[in-house]
Amino acid sequence: MTEYKVPLNDMDFLLYDVFNVDEVWRSLPQLAEQLDKDVAGAILQECAKIAEQAIAPISREGDEEGVSFKLNDNGIGGKVTTAKGYKEAFATYAEGGWCGLGGDVEYGGMGMPKVLTAFHEEMLSSADIAFALYPVLTAGAGLSLAKHGSEGLKEKFLTKMYSGQWTASMCLTEAHAGSDLGLIQTKAVLQDDNSYSVTGSKIFITGGEHDLTENIVHLVLAKLPDAPAGPRGISLFLVPKILVNDDQSLGEPNKVSCGAIEHKMGIHASATCVMNFDGAKGYLIGELNKGLACMFTMMNFERIGVGIQGLSAGERSYQNALAYAKDRKQGRALVKNETTKSANNADSIMVHGDVRRMLLNMKALNEGSRALSCYIALQLDYATYGSGELQAKGEALSALMTPLAKAFFTDLGFENTVTGQQVFGGHGYIREWGQEQLVRDARITQIYEGTNGIQAMDLLMRKVVGSQGKLVNIFIDEVRSYLQTVTGDSQLTEFAQPLSQALDDFSQVSSALIKQADVNLNDLGVAANDYLHLFGYTAMAYIWMKMAQSSLQKTTQQDAGQSEMFYQSKVHTARYFFTRLLPRRLSLMATINTRSDCLFNIDDDLF
Amino acid sequence: MTEYKVPLNDMDFLLYDVFNVDEVWRSLPQLAEQLDKDVAGAILQECAKIAEQAIAPISREGDEEGVSFKLNDNGIGGKVTTAKGYKEAFATYAEGGWCGLGGDVEYGGMGMPKVLTAFHEEMLSSADIAFALYPVLTAGAGLSLAKHGSEGLKEKFLTKMYSGQWTASMCLTEAHAGSDLGLIQTKAVLQDDNSYSVTGSKIFITGGEHDLTENIVHLVLAKLPDAPAGPRGISLFLVPKILVNDDQSLGEPNKVSCGAIEHKMGIHASATCVMNFDGAKGYLIGELNKGLACMFTMMNFERIGVGIQGLSAGERSYQNALAYAKDRKQGRALVKNETTKSANNADSIMVHGDVRRMLLNMKALNEGSRALSCYIALQLDYATYGSGELQAKGEALSALMTPLAKAFFTDLGFENTVTGQQVFGGHGYIREWGQEQLVRDARITQIYEGTNGIQAMDLLMRKVVGSQGKLVNIFIDEVRSYLQTVTGDSQLTEFAQPLSQALDDFSQVSSALIKQADVNLNDLGVAANDYLHLFGYTAMAYIWMKMAQSSLQKTTQQDAGQSEMFYQSKVHTARYFFTRLLPRRLSLMATINTRSDCLFNIDDDLF
Repeated sequence: MTEYKVPLNDMDFLLYDVFNVDEVWRSLPQLAEQLDKDVAGAILQECAKIAEQAIAPISREGDEEGVSFKLNDNGIGGKVTTAKGYKEAFATYAEGGWCGLGGDVEYGGMGMPKVLTAFHEEMLSSADIAFALYPVLTAGAGLSLAKHGSEGLKEKFLTKMYSGQWTASMCLTEAHAGSDLGLIQTKAVLQDDNSYSVTGSKIFITGGEHDLTENIVHLVLAKLPDAPAGPRGISLFLVPKILVNDDQSLGEPNKVSCGAIEHKMGIHASATCVMNFDGAKGYLIGELNKGLACMFTMMNFERIGVGIQGLSAGERSYQNALAYAKDRKQGRALVKNETTKSANNADSIMVHGDVRRMLLNMKALNEGSRALSCYIALQLDYATYGSGELQAKGEALSALMTPLAKAFFTDLGFENTVTGQQVFGGHGYIREWGQEQLVRDARITQIYEGTNGIQAMDLLMRKVVGSQGKLVNIFIDEVRSYLQTVTGDSQLTEFAQPLSQALDDFSQVSSALIKQADVNLNDLGVAANDYLHLFGYTAMAYIWMKMAQSSLQKTTQQDAGQSEMFYQSKVHTARYFFTRLLPRRLSLMATINTRSDCLFNIDDDLF
Repeated sequence: MTEYKVPLNDMDFLLYDVFNVDEVWRSLPQLAEQLDKDVAGAILQECAKIAEQAIAPISREGDEEGVSFKLNDNGIGGKVTTAKGYKEAFATYAEGGWCGLGGDVEYGGMGMPKVLTAFHEEMLSSADIAFALYPVLTAGAGLSLAKHGSEGLKEKFLTKMYSGQWTASMCLTEAHAGSDLGLIQTKAVLQDDNSYSVTGSKIFITGGEHDLTENIVHLVLAKLPDAPAGPRGISLFLVPKILVNDDQSLGEPNKVSCGAIEHKMGIHASATCVMNFDGAKGYLIGELNKGLACMFTMMNFERIGVGIQGLSAGERSYQNALAYAKDRKQGRALVKNETTKSANNADSIMVHGDVRRMLLNMKALNEGSRALSCYIALQLDYATYGSGELQAKGEALSALMTPLAKAFFTDLGFENTVTGQQVFGGHGYIREWGQEQLVRDARITQIYEGTNGIQAMDLLMRKVVGSQGKLVNIFIDEVRSYLQTVTGDSQLTEFAQPLSQALDDFSQVSSALIKQADVNLNDLGVAANDYLHLFGYTAMAYIWMKMAQSSLQKTTQQDAGQSEMFYQSKVHTARYFFTRLLPRRLSLMATINTRSDCLFNIDDDLF
C-alpha cells in the first residue's frame, strides 16, 4: 500500500482560506485564550506524524491478525488480545496527550474545537479505522461524562480518560434492541450506597474489552425496575471494568465480563464485544430516565465522527489508486497528444477517460466531504463556544446536518473505496494491496452509530418536518444570501447558476415533503434516503462553490507561488463536481417526487 | 443464513410465459430433437436440487477455510487443497453429468441451449460462486476447444472435461498484462513432434491447481518467437497438467507448476493461482496468431456467465434479507393500518418505507437482470442454432449485449448484496449471517473477465461506434416495433409511455455519441460507463414491460390459480421499477451529454 500522507494542505486551505477560522477563534473568548493559527498548525502537524508513522503502518497486519479472545479459566468471560503493535501505538498516542484533545480543560483536556478534532479524527481513521475507534469512542464518552457527570465522577474517571490511561465504551445495543433502544432490558437497581446494581447483556460493544489499558469505563444504558416503558425510561450509568478507589487507584474487578467477540467483515483489529453485566456496580450519569439525552450529547459529535471515518477511507483509497494509476501501464490513449507519456508499448492508465472519471469522482467527493464536514464542525463550535444568534444558528445547523454528515459521507466514502479498488483491477481484489481492506473497513460506517436509513429518517422526520422547515430554511437562506453576494461575478457564473437551481429545487422538495407529512407519512419514509442525498449534493455544491471562489481569488492574486497548482486543482475539481456529480440530484428529485403507493400496495406475502 | 431456494417459478415464467422458448425450440431443428418443456423442467429441477442440497451448504465453511497451498518438497511449485466438502460436492456434481450440460453432443455433452445453461449457472453461483467457478470455467474452455480444437484434441480432452473427470483453466493474464493482452510475454516454440514448448508465468489463474480432479487442462495464450507484435501475434495452446496417453490414460507430469495462490477479499474457496510453464508441452488450438479469436469464442459465453454471477449473489442477498426483515422487530409503523402486524412493542421492519425500498430495489433489479439475461441467452441460442435472418439478428444482439450483461448485472448484483447487508443492520457486518460474504464474493464479478470499465468501452467503441449504430439500432427497432403492437392498450400505458421516452432518449444519445467519435474520442471514453448503464436501464424497462404484459394477461385470464400471487407480484414489481428505478437514467443522461474537457484539462500533476 502507498504510504499515507495527511492532506494538511487541504486542511489549511479549509481552515484559513475558506472558513477564516483564525478570525472566528479570535472572536470566541473561550477559544481566543488558548488557540491561534500557530497552535493549530503545530497540533495538526504533530498529529499527522503520529497517524502517518505510528498508526498507518500497523493497519495491514492488524487486519490479518485481528483481535483474539480467550475464555477465562473460571469460564466467566474472557480476555481480548489486540494485534501486534496496537498496544505500543496506543501508548505512543496516549503519551502525546491526544486522548484529551477535545476534552474539558478543567479535567486535563486540551479544549480544542471540533474543526481541529474533526481533522484529527480523519487522520486517525485514514491511518486505521480499527485503531481509531478505541480513542475516538473514549473521547465521545468523555463528552457525555463532562457534560452530565457529577464532579466526583469527572475527577475520578474523566482525567484518566483524557490521559489515555483508561479507555471507554458505549453500551447501548442489545440483541433484540438495535435501532430501537426503547426495547432494552438491562436493569439497574439502586443500592444502599447510592450506586446501582446493573444487570444485562449488551452486544456489538466496540472496545468493550481489550489489553490496551488497565481499565475500561463503560457507559451503559439501563432501566430502573419501575421506569416508564420505552425510551423515556432509560438511564445512563458509568460502570467501570475495575472498581476505582477514591485516590484513583484500582480496586476489585467489577462484575463485568466479555462473553465473546464478533467475527466481522472488516475492522478486524477493533474488538466488538458481547458484554455481560451481572450485578455490576454502576453510577448514575445525569438524571434518572434522561439517559438518552445524555447519550445524545455524544451522539452529535460521534455521528459526525463516523461520517468522517467514511471520508477517511475514501481519502486513503484515492491516494492509493492515484499512485497505482500513475504507475500502471495498460493500453494506449484514445487521443494522442503531447501530454501522453508513452512507454514502449503502453501508456499509464491515467490516459483513459474512465480511469480519470474514477479518480476525479473520488477526489471531488472526498474534498467536498472534508469541506462540508469542516463547515458542520464549525457550526458545532459556534453552538459550543458562541453566544446569542451565532450560537442559536450553530445549534440549528449542526442538529440539521449531523445525520447528513453521518450518512452522506459514509455512503460516499464507501463508494470511493469501491471505486479506488476498481482502479486497481484484479490487484484491487488481492489482500496485499490493501484496497479491499478499505472497502471492508468502510462498510461498517454506513451501519453503526445508527444505520444510514435511521439517519435519513432523523433528518427528514425530526429535523425537517419536526421543525416545520425552520432548520432547513436557515441553511437555504444562508446559501441564498451567499449567492446574492456574488451576483454579477462572471467568473463564478458556472457555479452560481447550477447551485441556484439546485437550491430552488431542494427548497421546493423540502416544502412539498413537509406538506405531505399531513397527507401520508409513508411517503416521507420512502423518500427519506433520497432526500438526504439530495440535501448532501446541494450542500456540497454550496461548499464547492465557496472553495472555487477562494481558489480563484488566490490564482488571480498570483501570490500563490508553490501552491498555485493547489488552487488550480481546486478550481478544476469544483468544475468537475458541478459538471459530473451534481447531476446525480436529477434522479433523486424524480424519485422523491413519487408517492409510496408502489411500495405499500404490495402485500408482504408478494415479496 | 437462510436456506437457498432456486427461483424455479421465475425461471419457468421467463421461459414459457415471456419468451415462449418451447415454441422457439420446436422451430430450431438441432434443439427440437432433444429438448422440450418436460426435458427442460427435469433438468432445472434436478439442477436446483444439487445447488440447494449439495453446494449451498458448503459455501459458508468454504469461505472460512479457503483453499490452502503447500510447497512441494523439491521447491518447484506446490499443491492446492480445497476446503472441506468441495471434493465430494464436485464429485456429486460431475456424476450428475452437469459438466457437459452445454457441451457438444458428439463428445458426450448434453447440447443444451444457453437459456438453460444460464439458469444452471445462476443456481450454481447463488449456491456458491467459489464452487461454481471450477465447472463454469471448464465449460467455457470446452466451448473454445469444441469450436477450434482438432479432432484429436477433442477426443482426448473434451470428453474428459464433459464427464467432469478433468477440469480446465484459462491462462491469459500476466503480471504486466491484464486488460492489455497484447503485452503478454509467454513464449511457445515449435518442437519436432509438432507440439510446442511453452514457457512463461501467468497470474490470477482461477482453478489453475486444485485437488478436485486428477488432471487439469490449461488453455494458455502465448506467442511464437517470430510472432507479430501486439494482439495479432497471440496463439492459444492446450497444456495439460499431466500428459495424456493416446488411450486417455495419464502419463508423466507436464512442466507446469503452481507457484503460489492469492489471498483475496472473497471467493476464498476458489484457488487463484500463479501458474508457471517451464518448457511445458502444449498443443496449438486453432490457427497460429489467431489465439484471441479462439479465446473470444468462450468470452461471449463467459462474460454473460459472470454477469449472471452478479445476479446470483443479488438473488441470494434478497432471499436472506427478506427472511430477516420479516422476522426482525424494531420500531413502529409510521402509518398504522390493518396490515400492520404488531408485536407487543415493535413491528416487523417490513413496515418501514426504507426497508421496503431496499427490498424492492433488490427484487426489481434481480428479476430484471434475470429476464434480461434470459433474453440475451436466447439471442446466443439464435446465433448458435438459428439460420438466416434470425441467426444474424441473434449474433448482432448478443455481440451488442454481452458487455452490457457482464457489467450491468454485476454492478447491480454488487449493489444488491450491499443493500441486502444493510437490511440486516449490524448483523449484516457479522460473518456468521453470510451477508458480508455475498458482498465480498460478488465484488470480483465487476473486476474479472475484463473490468466493467473495459466492458463499457467494448460496448460503446467496438459495438456501437464500431458498427456505426447498426447493432444498437437493431435493438432500438425491436423495442419500437414492440411498442407499436401495444398502442392503445390502456392497461399498458403506464409502462409504454416511460419506455417510449427512455428509448427515444437512448436512441438520441447513441447517435450523438457516434457523431462525437469524429470530434473527440475522449468524450466517448468518459461517457462509456454511464452509457452502458443507460442502455441497461432502458433494456431492462423493455423486459419489465414484457413481463408486466405477460402477467397482466394471466391475472386477467384468471387461469392462474395458485400462481395468481406470482403474477400480481410481477405487476407490482414492474410498477416499482418504472416508478423508482428507471429514473436513474436521468442523471446518466445529464452526464453523458457533458464533454470530456473537465477530465482532460487537468494535468496529471494536479490530481
